Amino acid sequence: MDSAHPEFMETLQNFQFIRQLNEDTHSKSITLLGSIADEKTGKEEQSILLVEKLHFHASEIPVLVSSRLQSPKLTFNNDIYHWYKSNIKNDESIPDIKMTLIYPATEIHIKKYSKQEGVMVRETPDMYKQVVLPYIEGFPTSRIQWVYNILDKVQESERIVFEDPDKEHGFILLPDSKWDQTTMNALYLLVICHRHDVRSLRDLRSQHLELLRRIQREIPKAVVAKYPHVSEDQLKLYIHYQPSYYHFHVHVTHVALSSSPGATVGKANLLDTVIDNIENIDHEYYAKCTLSYVLGTDHGLYEGVQQYLNAPK
Amino acid sequence: MDSAHPEFMETLQNFQFIRQLNEDTHSKSITLLGSIADEKTGKEEQSILLVEKLHFHASEIPVLVSSRLQSPKLTFNNDIYHWYKSNIKNDESIPDIKMTLIYPATEIHIKKYSKQEGVMVRETPDMYKQVVLPYIEGFPTSRIQWVYNILDKVQESERIVFEDPDKEHGFILLPDSKWDQTTMNALYLLVICHRHDVRSLRDLRSQHLELLRRIQREIPKAVVAKYPHVSEDQLKLYIHYQPSYYHFHVHVTHVALSSSPGATVGKANLLDTVIDNIENIDHEYYAKCTLSYVLGTDHGLYEGVQQYLNAPK
Repeated sequence: MDSAHPEFMETLQNFQFIRQLNEDTHSKSITLLGSIADEKTGKEEQSILLVEKLHFHASEIPVLVSSRLQSPKLTFNNDIYHWYKSNIKNDESIPDIKMTLIYPATEIHIKKYSKQEGVMVRETPDMYKQVVLPYIEGFPTSRIQWVYNILDKVQESERIVFEDPDKEHGFILLPDSKWDQTTMNALYLLVICHRHDVRSLRDLRSQHLELLRRIQREIPKAVVAKYPHVSEDQLKLYIHYQPSYYHFHVHVTHVALSSSPGATVGKANLLDTVIDNIENIDHEYYAKCTLSYVLGTDHGLYEGVQQYLNAPK
Repeated sequence: MDSAHPEFMETLQNFQFIRQLNEDTHSKSITLLGSIADEKTGKEEQSILLVEKLHFHASEIPVLVSSRLQSPKLTFNNDIYHWYKSNIKNDESIPDIKMTLIYPATEIHIKKYSKQEGVMVRETPDMYKQVVLPYIEGFPTSRIQWVYNILDKVQESERIVFEDPDKEHGFILLPDSKWDQTTMNALYLLVICHRHDVRSLRDLRSQHLELLRRIQREIPKAVVAKYPHVSEDQLKLYIHYQPSYYHFHVHVTHVALSSSPGATVGKANLLDTVIDNIENIDHEYYAKCTLSYVLGTDHGLYEGVQQYLNAPK
């Protein structure tokens, strides 16, 4: 608290709204342009006001429903799902809160909606060899049968957007199941390579540069040809580490999807950076580097990583 | 509206809080486990309640400050930045809103806070030298006066959480103004280095390893000493490129903040990776590498970058 400036206590009350500059509906924040008259000179000065809803306060959570909400209104229900809107107690009619009630709820619902804890892991080349590689090699191939079904056109062949059929350097492009295929700001596709022997980012060497460069060159063209409302420079291509399955694939999203958890640093590795690292920095970059990422405590690797870290060195 | 089930209008009032399952401080939402007694049988059933703050309603925005806010309280100020908390009009004492007032604001501020489209840019070492470096060197030092105010203890000295006072390898740690300092899952602090000559990630060389390693070693300990409800492996330390100001600083957040736009790949660069790149891969990594990131079309660099890309090579 800077108590030397009590005048700013009054300043905000003099804010005259001009226009909205921006908003973020995910974080519930708005940015407003206004003017404030200087208290001494009367001169109008431009000012910007960022307003953001605050998160719930820990102390209010146990009593939120019983004492802080005012006359919740049911807006819709379907089976065990019930949707409401409500106000935090106040004298106005604009709703401040939306709620989904799942009732009755099973243990599966409870697990699904419970917090997954994560910890930062620094995977050195040695940790990869001792812990991660055996984990990958123990993966039943049945877990990636669905990938082979796509590559062999047994499944989802009608969804293929583009194919480079080269068995060594080629790949298939298709929409990710998370994408509705209409909202361009949420564009999300997947590139799955034809060759079966690249398990992850860790396996990439200079022999794979041709595959990586073809993806970098051909995918933006193919996406824009199919979805002309996006441009090539609005696409972000990245590789997950750890991936959710160990057959090399690349995520293709709109740059506006920057706050999706899958685009977070550590999990996502830009294709451009990967190519630059192998081509211009060191051909053996992914054999030598330490890869840092958040590992969920319920991930299959978690226990092995903890044992490795706690083992006497 | 499913009017066949009027009983669910009453159901929510019978919700008895058991425990919190999850929360997302970015979207301001919580997931609660509770029980609801069946109205006929009296049997208690588990239920899950998702509660999420609603975004501002378009109609309230022009009159928000003048008619919907109640007695805003200034929490601190530094230079032209003033932070407030307030309530949406109600009869309780828990603040619902936080605000940042920038007054007086320049056209540069207005541009920075307006909505931006973005494009992917691949910044080669040559593009850095031709476009980015002249841009940084043209920055008036008055734009980072607030950083010097912190380092010189002229402002915000009471907010300092930790200091390594070494002029060459030292730094100051303090909470970021975006953080409420109570919600541990939203933990957000900033490390600002004492030396003035490191403008960004691009400047980092082996001579800076001592500074970077001290941050990597000392900051997690200092954060946990101050906030014992987080552990060292729940912290994510990263560096923005482009940063919003060209004085070297490191962001420190909880791993749970993975879906914040500031943690997105390309903008965020993990401190661990940066140290590994310089120490184990190549001392000159940040002089040689191509840095890819999303650049807003309103960013001061955008025009220069476009001219560079369109110039005959």
